[in-house]
Amino acid sequence: MEQRTEISTLGEFGLIEHLTKNFEIQNASSILGIGDDAAVIDHFGKQTVVTTDLLIEGIHFDLMYTPLKHLGYKSVIVNLSDIYAMNATPTQITISIAFSNRFSVEALSEFYEGIYAACEKYNVDLVGGDSSSSQKGFIISVTALGEVAPDKFVQRSTANKGDLICVSGDVGGAFLGLTLMQREKRIFLENPKIQPDLEGEDYIVGRLLKPEARKDIIDFFATNNITPTSMMDVSDGISSEILHLCKQSNLGCVIYEDKLPIHEKTRAAAFKFGLDPTVCALNGGEDYELIFTLKQEDYDKITLNEEIAVIGYMTELEDGCKLLTKGRNTFNITAQGWNAFTK
Amino acid sequence: MEQRTEISTLGEFGLIEHLTKNFEIQNASSILGIGDDAAVIDHFGKQTVVTTDLLIEGIHFDLMYTPLKHLGYKSVIVNLSDIYAMNATPTQITISIAFSNRFSVEALSEFYEGIYAACEKYNVDLVGGDSSSSQKGFIISVTALGEVAPDKFVQRSTANKGDLICVSGDVGGAFLGLTLMQREKRIFLENPKIQPDLEGEDYIVGRLLKPEARKDIIDFFATNNITPTSMMDVSDGISSEILHLCKQSNLGCVIYEDKLPIHEKTRAAAFKFGLDPTVCALNGGEDYELIFTLKQEDYDKITLNEEIAVIGYMTELEDGCKLLTKGRNTFNITAQGWNAFTK
Repeated sequence: MEQRTEISTLGEFGLIEHLTKNFEIQNASSILGIGDDAAVIDHFGKQTVVTTDLLIEGIHFDLMYTPLKHLGYKSVIVNLSDIYAMNATPTQITISIAFSNRFSVEALSEFYEGIYAACEKYNVDLVGGDSSSSQKGFIISVTALGEVAPDKFVQRSTANKGDLICVSGDVGGAFLGLTLMQREKRIFLENPKIQPDLEGEDYIVGRLLKPEARKDIIDFFATNNITPTSMMDVSDGISSEILHLCKQSNLGCVIYEDKLPIHEKTRAAAFKFGLDPTVCALNGGEDYELIFTLKQEDYDKITLNEEIAVIGYMTELEDGCKLLTKGRNTFNITAQGWNAFTK
Repeated sequence: MEQRTEISTLGEFGLIEHLTKNFEIQNASSILGIGDDAAVIDHFGKQTVVTTDLLIEGIHFDLMYTPLKHLGYKSVIVNLSDIYAMNATPTQITISIAFSNRFSVEALSEFYEGIYAACEKYNVDLVGGDSSSSQKGFIISVTALGEVAPDKFVQRSTANKGDLICVSGDVGGAFLGLTLMQREKRIFLENPKIQPDLEGEDYIVGRLLKPEARKDIIDFFATNNITPTSMMDVSDGISSEILHLCKQSNLGCVIYEDKLPIHEKTRAAAFKFGLDPTVCALNGGEDYELIFTLKQEDYDKITLNEEIAVIGYMTELEDGCKLLTKGRNTFNITAQGWNAFTK
């Protein structure tokens, strides 16, 4: 029988102590972490980057098919992804959570295991947080801090006409993972005797449940002396993100359908579900890849990196945001990305 | 008739734009604020301080008697209070919110008015955040960053035996404000025709609904060359906080009942409700005062400041944490402070 310790036996401070006792500070700059009113961070002349995300049960995740450890891991990743999208290096995070009394200490420990795994992998310190009860559902708020050499951060608004539009890794997989899990959940709810059929779908399920942040791309930029002219992470889908880059840079764009990087497993899953892989790639969210623009003269520097695809280029504002299909048709790109207010 | 704009007509990004469009960056160190993946902050050799708080409707606040503007204001204050409690100066905040569709744009604008009012008063920049829908209730997560000269931050664990224990302002008022509002709510729910009777209770209601952070005390320390030996803010009640200071400093303490700073309006309200003012002062939360310890030789520096009361001193660990009453009885101090898991 699994052990179940009621959170009330520990109290808030006991709980924080319990959850953080095995966690060691990694960065010399984390002068003071958990256990005081605030954390202290030294930066030695670098610039501090800060981002925050709120994740709500039933809106951003479904505990029916999301293991708590994966949820903890992903909660960190989505924030680190925002830090990398600034061309910065994450250094510290804070985590606040609220939960109902259906959660046990073991459940929360599992969640924190995921958090610590992400912190360890990305060399980030957990330096603070808050915890509380909630009336309904599990609520997670993460703030990440990072550092970047002075004025080396990359914004969304600084692309130029003619710049190449690039995407890291591949896109659309997380959306198909979500589609699969939602289908399996529906089937399970209708008949609890039927076990989920995830055979051969590790890739898309992994994209949904255990995303990674593209530290390797930022490292590649540094090693190869590349500074993107603009950048952001792909959390709401390529369509939505490219419209942000265009709007904030006062430009238009052309995206080539046949250049969109889509994994073969993603294509196969789309086919199985009767969905258009291109639509999944453009409008599916949560891939946590990076989309960025480069000066054309930097093209040679990226050709050997198989993790980077050039998918189009920036145009004049008046040209609008266009998708050129394989069949040579042109469509306006519209934002049908993931939206926390419509789901 | 009041205007009501549905949030769905703006969408998430439109909403953020709407809510932040009139907000100007105040600190030169806020290099990049809202509108990108993360905010960039420069610190020129100072140390960065970060704190975060999660506020949940029904747990931390009741919208039945909390005006949204006040709620926004207070959400910022509770975080700034943590920054001041480090002997630091707050510089930036991020705010994430989640809300159900019963909220209109006007309601959220009112909430942000309060946030901006606090930012303006305390010279703090709002540099980022996130927003989402919620399945139930209003959820607020605030992270505050601050700066402090290298190694000038004050922890909880560094008090010494013999140090004086001091409290700013007065305590217990917010708890009586809460008691009053809960009574009026109950009466109203039983009979909606009865209007709330808050006559003469401005002080305690103000303590609950519009707390301030003790910037003045930190400024006073700087001007008078005072460095507390330990410090924290009073959010869960004096009892709870003094036990933290003692435990983390490995010491005991003696607190004098007759030295506890209690406002005459707080005393009057306690009398009216048949409550012991001392119990309210010790166990009532949300006063957002500062509790700190001083070397005895610093006593002369604070005697002229009427906003600081000396309430006791630190003793050996073995002496325990004691309250000496007016009647010369001695009690052990126990934590009955506000706890988000038992309410």
